[in-house]
Amino acid sequence: MRDEWFIRGAVPMTKSEVRAVSISKLELKRDSVLYDIGAGTGSVSIEAAMQMPAGQVYAIERDREASDLVRQNREKFGTDNVTVICREAPGGFEGLPAATHAFLGGTGGHMEDIVSGLFKINPHMRIVANIIALESLARILELVKRRKIQAEVVSLQVARAWKAGESHLMKGQNPVYVISMGGEDGT
Amino acid sequence: MRDEWFIRGAVPMTKSEVRAVSISKLELKRDSVLYDIGAGTGSVSIEAAMQMPAGQVYAIERDREASDLVRQNREKFGTDNVTVICREAPGGFEGLPAATHAFLGGTGGHMEDIVSGLFKINPHMRIVANIIALESLARILELVKRRKIQAEVVSLQVARAWKAGESHLMKGQNPVYVISMGGEDGT
Amino acid sequence: MRDEWFIRGAVPMTKSEVRAVSISKLELKRDSVLYDIGAGTGSVSIEAAMQMPAGQVYAIERDREASDLVRQNREKFGTDNVTVICREAPGGFEGLPAATHAFLGGTGGHMEDIVSGLFKINPHMRIVANIIALESLARILELVKRRKIQAEVVSLQVARAWKAGESHLMKGQNPVYVISMGGEDGT
Amino acid sequence: MRDEWFIRGAVPMTKSEVRAVSISKLELKRDSVLYDIGAGTGSVSIEAAMQMPAGQVYAIERDREASDLVRQNREKFGTDNVTVICREAPGGFEGLPAATHAFLGGTGGHMEDIVSGLFKINPHMRIVANIIALESLARILELVKRRKIQAEVVSLQVARAWKAGESHLMKGQNPVYVISMGGEDGT
Repeated sequence: MRDEWFIRGAVPMTKSEVRAVSISKLELKRDSVLYDIGAGTGSVSIEAAMQMPAGQVYAIERDREASDLVRQNREKFGTDNVTVICREAPGGFEGLPAATHAFLGGTGGHMEDIVSGLFKINPHMRIVANIIALESLARILELVKRRKIQAEVVSLQVARAWKAGESHLMKGQNPVYVISMGGEDGT
Repeated sequence: MRDEWFIRGAVPMTKSEVRAVSISKLELKRDSVLYDIGAGTGSVSIEAAMQMPAGQVYAIERDREASDLVRQNREKFGTDNVTVICREAPGGFEGLPAATHAFLGGTGGHMEDIVSGLFKINPHMRIVANIIALESLARILELVKRRKIQAEVVSLQVARAWKAGESHLMKGQNPVYVISMGGEDGT
Repeated sequence: MRDEWFIRGAVPMTKSEVRAVSISKLELKRDSVLYDIGAGTGSVSIEAAMQMPAGQVYAIERDREASDLVRQNREKFGTDNVTVICREAPGGFEGLPAATHAFLGGTGGHMEDIVSGLFKINPHMRIVANIIALESLARILELVKRRKIQAEVVSLQVARAWKAGESHLMKGQNPVYVISMGGEDGT
Repeated sequence: MRDEWFIRGAVPMTKSEVRAVSISKLELKRDSVLYDIGAGTGSVSIEAAMQMPAGQVYAIERDREASDLVRQNREKFGTDNVTVICREAPGGFEGLPAATHAFLGGTGGHMEDIVSGLFKINPHMRIVANIIALESLARILELVKRRKIQAEVVSLQVARAWKAGESHLMKGQNPVYVISMGGEDGT
């Protein structure tokens, strides 16, 4: 889905190409239960919800403004299977149905707590994280090593053309690490 | 979908991340009709077919061995809505239902003819191409300019970690241009 | 040399890493004669001049403001072997000592004329070009093919960290093609 | 300098573009004293030596075969100001003239010890490291934070064309982090 289709405020947004790769790495099923943690504008929640008509998405976003944006986007796209939870992770998971999948888009400082909390809810959860800060990358690799789990680590560097007269000039976007771990086959 | 899930021979294959972005750019609907031109192993055909249960995919691949691979993968994934056409594009389009979408994965030399043929079948077709050769990039930009259409040009540079003992080392994949054009909103 | 060492106005500037690679590809000798065509701030002229104490650099820049910047930077770094020529290429080559090397940083529309002009002056000239626009890339590959010369084509995607609190966040720069051709060994 | 100019065995080698950027980040002077730690084939030693005719390079390489390669390359390029030290860092620094600059190309496990050893020899040393493993990146960022020094962190993703018939196809190289720290201005 194109970035400009979403209602956005000043809230940062996972870019189209990174979103497509991240959702692909989630390996959602028709009836999965996904926590979208640090949902931002909700672009991942909505694109994922569309791929699982019998599934449920919980968009967990502590910021009130951002969670309003998720609601507006849910309205716009008619994705009734998205529920907005304006709470902070990992505390905000309480009372929710156990997830089969989780996406971590925000890079708040609580990564270890969140991942630990998620694996406690479901040891076979499939977790995909977008990492921007090199220090967060270090922490997640440390966690992966300590827990003795396998993680797939991929970096994406996307550039997009803009037109200057008749010419296409490539504009570099920020590189993102996409980390995938867990899931039913234990990888 | 993971690359290793597909049955492959020596046939080159669109890599997981590039496939996810390309299918996302296609903007498929539940009931779209997709031509996958130069289908190779059929990975794009099959991943796309799964996203459109009421749609049809025509995997057009001139190479007999490769088209056998597509059949094997169709079997493996049970995607009955994929039809394998062992013919060369653009001639091979004859007799097929008109496509709403097309993916060009191979970089045979007939790009202009193929794109012209596609737009003749359906002037609102959504076409996404993966381009590796710089000369093909030049030709497609020339075509876009001549036809006065807009194209979105994105380049993807993916790197994937492999483990050497306890360390993750990033291995660079080949950069790919993903070109998207056409579609119902005329972009 | 660091970008912030140079006096800059609004004039675009070859970034440090791309400059280092481009000057390396030039394969300058102590006593080379370099045309820096579309010199901008003069950063390539000055960094190159420092590597060839017995050589000469001609910074050819049609824009008056930019050519003033080159003069200021020459002053700042004391590189007396840089001569500023406020003329347009290829006409501006007239009357200058024949170059052994040329750098094309700007992507004005005259690439073919300029390269042709350069090879007329010295068929063994070593030419390095920075290309941003995909259409310019197409034109230079066409030229290379027509002239039946070999060219080395390299693309650089650089990202640079900035600090947000204690974290390093990578910021993507624009990808650049560096094309190298010619030289004494005829490659 | 081109990679193919160097005599190489099976020893891994810093690629031309990364070498150019790394040497540029070292900010060598005519008379600098450089330790090239984990010198490999000696490509950095030799290219650096050529840029500082009044300087000294100590190529520190524990592997006997590799240090022989450095000697052969020194011979080939006539860079008499390169001294080969077949010892392991940081112990191997003993008895050498104090360095003003150091390059870390190898990613042995002793990074912290080596950097600590270097700053003990000269607190204003300019140190540039090439990092491939994400775990080494984590360790060097930890070190930078603990020592409260500034580091410039740059990532390079280079792709190089090869020719298939008349076409240029881009081949991705492995991404490398180039970390620069220290130096006379204390950055």
